[in-house]
Amino acid sequence: MAGSTFGNIFKITTWGESHGKALGVVIDGCPAGLSLNENDIQSYLDRRKPGQTSISTPRKESDQVEILSGVFEGKTTGTPISLMVPNTSQKSSDYSEIASYYRPGHADYSFDAKYGFRDYTGGGRSSGRETIGRVAAGAIACKLLKEMGIMITAYTRAIGPVQADLSLFDKEAITSTPTCMPDRAADEKAMAYLKACMEKKDSSGGIIECLVDGLPAGIGDPVFEKLDANLAKAVMSIGAVKAVEIGDGIQVSGALGSANNDAFVSRDGRIEKKTNHSGGILGGISDGSRIILRAHVKPTPSIFSAQETVNKAGENIEIQIKGRHDPVIVPRAVVVVEAMTAITILDACMLNMTARVDYLKDFYAH
Amino acid sequence: MAGSTFGNIFKITTWGESHGKALGVVIDGCPAGLSLNENDIQSYLDRRKPGQTSISTPRKESDQVEILSGVFEGKTTGTPISLMVPNTSQKSSDYSEIASYYRPGHADYSFDAKYGFRDYTGGGRSSGRETIGRVAAGAIACKLLKEMGIMITAYTRAIGPVQADLSLFDKEAITSTPTCMPDRAADEKAMAYLKACMEKKDSSGGIIECLVDGLPAGIGDPVFEKLDANLAKAVMSIGAVKAVEIGDGIQVSGALGSANNDAFVSRDGRIEKKTNHSGGILGGISDGSRIILRAHVKPTPSIFSAQETVNKAGENIEIQIKGRHDPVIVPRAVVVVEAMTAITILDACMLNMTARVDYLKDFYAH
Amino acid sequence: MAGSTFGNIFKITTWGESHGKALGVVIDGCPAGLSLNENDIQSYLDRRKPGQTSISTPRKESDQVEILSGVFEGKTTGTPISLMVPNTSQKSSDYSEIASYYRPGHADYSFDAKYGFRDYTGGGRSSGRETIGRVAAGAIACKLLKEMGIMITAYTRAIGPVQADLSLFDKEAITSTPTCMPDRAADEKAMAYLKACMEKKDSSGGIIECLVDGLPAGIGDPVFEKLDANLAKAVMSIGAVKAVEIGDGIQVSGALGSANNDAFVSRDGRIEKKTNHSGGILGGISDGSRIILRAHVKPTPSIFSAQETVNKAGENIEIQIKGRHDPVIVPRAVVVVEAMTAITILDACMLNMTARVDYLKDFYAH
Amino acid sequence: MAGSTFGNIFKITTWGESHGKALGVVIDGCPAGLSLNENDIQSYLDRRKPGQTSISTPRKESDQVEILSGVFEGKTTGTPISLMVPNTSQKSSDYSEIASYYRPGHADYSFDAKYGFRDYTGGGRSSGRETIGRVAAGAIACKLLKEMGIMITAYTRAIGPVQADLSLFDKEAITSTPTCMPDRAADEKAMAYLKACMEKKDSSGGIIECLVDGLPAGIGDPVFEKLDANLAKAVMSIGAVKAVEIGDGIQVSGALGSANNDAFVSRDGRIEKKTNHSGGILGGISDGSRIILRAHVKPTPSIFSAQETVNKAGENIEIQIKGRHDPVIVPRAVVVVEAMTAITILDACMLNMTARVDYLKDFYAH
Repeated sequence: MAGSTFGNIFKITTWGESHGKALGVVIDGCPAGLSLNENDIQSYLDRRKPGQTSISTPRKESDQVEILSGVFEGKTTGTPISLMVPNTSQKSSDYSEIASYYRPGHADYSFDAKYGFRDYTGGGRSSGRETIGRVAAGAIACKLLKEMGIMITAYTRAIGPVQADLSLFDKEAITSTPTCMPDRAADEKAMAYLKACMEKKDSSGGIIECLVDGLPAGIGDPVFEKLDANLAKAVMSIGAVKAVEIGDGIQVSGALGSANNDAFVSRDGRIEKKTNHSGGILGGISDGSRIILRAHVKPTPSIFSAQETVNKAGENIEIQIKGRHDPVIVPRAVVVVEAMTAITILDACMLNMTARVDYLKDFYAH
Repeated sequence: MAGSTFGNIFKITTWGESHGKALGVVIDGCPAGLSLNENDIQSYLDRRKPGQTSISTPRKESDQVEILSGVFEGKTTGTPISLMVPNTSQKSSDYSEIASYYRPGHADYSFDAKYGFRDYTGGGRSSGRETIGRVAAGAIACKLLKEMGIMITAYTRAIGPVQADLSLFDKEAITSTPTCMPDRAADEKAMAYLKACMEKKDSSGGIIECLVDGLPAGIGDPVFEKLDANLAKAVMSIGAVKAVEIGDGIQVSGALGSANNDAFVSRDGRIEKKTNHSGGILGGISDGSRIILRAHVKPTPSIFSAQETVNKAGENIEIQIKGRHDPVIVPRAVVVVEAMTAITILDACMLNMTARVDYLKDFYAH
Repeated sequence: MAGSTFGNIFKITTWGESHGKALGVVIDGCPAGLSLNENDIQSYLDRRKPGQTSISTPRKESDQVEILSGVFEGKTTGTPISLMVPNTSQKSSDYSEIASYYRPGHADYSFDAKYGFRDYTGGGRSSGRETIGRVAAGAIACKLLKEMGIMITAYTRAIGPVQADLSLFDKEAITSTPTCMPDRAADEKAMAYLKACMEKKDSSGGIIECLVDGLPAGIGDPVFEKLDANLAKAVMSIGAVKAVEIGDGIQVSGALGSANNDAFVSRDGRIEKKTNHSGGILGGISDGSRIILRAHVKPTPSIFSAQETVNKAGENIEIQIKGRHDPVIVPRAVVVVEAMTAITILDACMLNMTARVDYLKDFYAH
Repeated sequence: MAGSTFGNIFKITTWGESHGKALGVVIDGCPAGLSLNENDIQSYLDRRKPGQTSISTPRKESDQVEILSGVFEGKTTGTPISLMVPNTSQKSSDYSEIASYYRPGHADYSFDAKYGFRDYTGGGRSSGRETIGRVAAGAIACKLLKEMGIMITAYTRAIGPVQADLSLFDKEAITSTPTCMPDRAADEKAMAYLKACMEKKDSSGGIIECLVDGLPAGIGDPVFEKLDANLAKAVMSIGAVKAVEIGDGIQVSGALGSANNDAFVSRDGRIEKKTNHSGGILGGISDGSRIILRAHVKPTPSIFSAQETVNKAGENIEIQIKGRHDPVIVPRAVVVVEAMTAITILDACMLNMTARVDYLKDFYAH
């Protein structure tokens, strides 16, 4: 496997298992001169921390990040930034049962098929804790993007049948409600829905939406490295995501061209679009409008109802998963979508700096 | 820009503009010893050729492929395979009008924003003709996959509101109906719908579905290079695709865990899944079931109704696009989805050959 | 194999065999807006063309380059530039003999070991003609570097025992003498030496030196992507090169620190070095002095004396290679070293544009 | 900068500064199933540890490695292996002097030119301690190669004018003499030479040679990813290396073809070469003979004699570096050359497993 690295210039490499000693990330290609300390990163990690609400596993993890390299006297040096989050609560629980069979909806079977065996404690590398490295790196990307005038905002768009009403958009609610919805009424409904799910020993899926504001037109590349293609990969690489939409997304397949095209309009010498069905990307390149993407997240596969499966001896068995797990993955994955979007956008912005001969001549003419 | 290369080991680089001298692709990393001639590739290219049906632009292009390198005495040599398709019908039509304004739904504006100017003849690099290189390379990937027992099948799942009924699946219909639907009744309905679209000077979107059969469990990587992440990128990088789904796709967000999990079952010593909501991928790694993905394609942006836009002088104008264009992109994009899927799957299969120490020891034990 | 692509942002992919239909290169990542026509490239290709002197194979190849994509109205568009050089003189000579045995010093045996068979006509992919794509791409890199104030100059430093005297440096001589030495007296001696070699049915090695002037300090990266590491790879990847030196090169191993260190000195507010033992690179990053590198090139392996070898049946045989070949590779490889150096330097300059947060903020502050 | 990652499938990413909290490496792409513990790695790190001989800086660093991820129940899992070596003896010495000027022969000036400032404590990222990550990763590569029958052996070939006599090759001496020479008599002479250097407040260069035994023919790629090109990059990327030779290296430029060509010979049904001027590589691909490479290492730039330089205010000053430093880099760099060679060879072996269609068909035919 050589699949733990993401990005071209702003390049991150994550490592670590759920119940190993630690998880971490190395960020190579972060420009020199960015003010950075642990708090900048911790605030993002805290958004995915377990044990904070009634719909989050009570496993307590402090998830404290430590900067091991790449920062000197408070500023990034241009050399790799190594971040580590020690695992503190790997209780020596008995995983021998999980070791012996394949949990439905999990990666147990596909891992064994690939590697011949697997770290079965807490999901190993395919645990949701793998996203710690993504979020830590994303915090840095977000900080740098902010200094460039670019803002990333992700939130829960839906949980099961409960949709957030965006006409009531309340940004504060994203980080203060347990569901991370930007609509407090929908949050309450969703919490009721989740409570019912838990009572039925079941789990729920949901939708995460992410916006990019302030991105100029011209970012992204025309063919394989289309901005939307890279965003799709970035977001689909998050465990449990099964669909990605850009702009109008799945609705375009039922739409007419006359309704789907966004008219251009000149306002005060600026070219804008009257609508934004495209979600801010045309031909793989940003068009100056807000970028909009959505990720569809499957229900938590660990449910407490009885399930049929196969054990390693090849026998058909019935299992009942113990412990406790979140009834929905979505709220804790919101910051992960935000992180992956930020990393992708920043990398595209960096690559774009060499798109024209004039950029090179301006840069080297001093 | 450095975005015209795709793949890690089976690596393709495409080039060419709609109205330039030629389009082509270099395939680097194709293993030595594959029987290959122009016909193997031509049959795929013919599936995307214009001028074949009433819903395809009558621009006649023979799109004849020529193998320039990498094949010796009928077999691939392991060195780069260079394929070229000359442009034969670039009529010297007057593009000065298109040069002067930004067509809604096209990449005209975003290209100009990126590069400062653009090749405005026929869409340049952002034309649908860019996919010729993808299809030519995909034909080789498909041929090699077949020898490994892996089959890729794409077809039109829907056009506008008309859905193919998969219970009537007719494989022959995919390559013999104008819509590339595997259901002749739906094809007829879709053709009627498209005719109505054309009469209203409008265009339609649609859905392409792609299946991978015969792929063993264990292919793909657990984190950023998840098989579904790479498929999402591959398919989203096709112009006009605005959403990608794996397995149940967008339906997972409204589903319950108990319904979405696929139970494992042992049959004759083989581990299988009772259902396939996962679309053949768990934790980014193939699970041995059929891979299923869907691409949502937007309506052709070139429509013949009047549209508002902006010209290069920054004036708001109304335009009426001339010429003739396909009322739907979907049928000609079916083989492109098949090609991109094949390239992605083959590359993942190649990477997988080094996943275990035993594989290396077996290979080098002589 | 996936080894026909070089570079990160300015990325080239070469293809083609000695006796195939054509050779070529795709340059992806060339910035938009560079004036470019066939002549810009042809003048570089002409420097490696055969049949021009008494020490160059009389095989006549016009080696005319054609631009197939990526240039519109005389300027690069930012999209891939596809260049092709058709093979015109692939005479249907009888290669069956070469097909049957392994020529000493050639890649015949190692190719067969890797791929199971090989294109034996004229060396196939391991022919010197493979460098056509490198030179064509290098011509573009050189043109762009010139606009940035950076000049690359390669020449023959030695042929066999005959060294050029650099105190007599005559730049014109590089492109007008048959040996490409910058010293006409040494050129004459070298020609006499080569004539003697040919009479003895033997061949000679030599040294190519390359200078980079005008490169600012700060280009290159500190660890694996050191500027000297990438130059070493670039130059060692040219067939027949067996050693690469930077600055004082092999002499550093016998040197004392007091002699090898270059003192810094401030002159008119500029920091310079009093000497340049480092060859312009410290810690993998350019130090503002001239870059100096040398490539040691082995003698042409095709000699006309009798040689021992093995045939495909595994029998020990004696062979006498027919046809005619250059008695020395060096003069025609000078422009190849220049090309590979240019591509490497340009790519490093492009990567460097994102080294500091301030660069990003300046670029995106509009 | 995005230059801290090396390799394609066996991919390593190093991080850390001389006086930061720790140094480390993430190895992604190590196959699953390799027995691995800290001792396997520690024994390699101990070979580059300071403070062991009279020619090594007395700074005491225990350099204890810790495995943080990727190993489960004593075996690699196929997921990233994170290794960390904490810095224990970063004494709070006063570096303000070094911060104020540019040491000749060091990367101080070029770092500042690139990033605008630098971590000046102990050389930061350009310290020799950066190689800890390389050696730790190399230990794993060596272990895996051994299981495949491939052995890597590096040693000191020369220190200043003192050459090891390889006819007396004593493998034990490599790890037991202070110079790492395989010739105890030469070691003694070299030690005397170094003592004299130290007395003169000077330092010495030297040569490291590395052998690869057991590598089958057919490894490496024909064009840019030639095996020798990648070895050249790998070795030139080690700080202080200024020249790399393969096989006869610099001697080929003065040689005749008749002497430089290696005749093939068939022995007991095996094809071998009668000589090995090529150093085991023809056309970029291994030819089945021993691989031989040499690195020329410059003298330690930190010397105790007075030196001229410039301070940050731009004034010409004279400095005298304090502390204590090794009079020669070579002995501690031997294991670094071995590590980088191993990583390069292993990666090439892995890439080679997809070179032929038959390999894929054999692998997937079960």
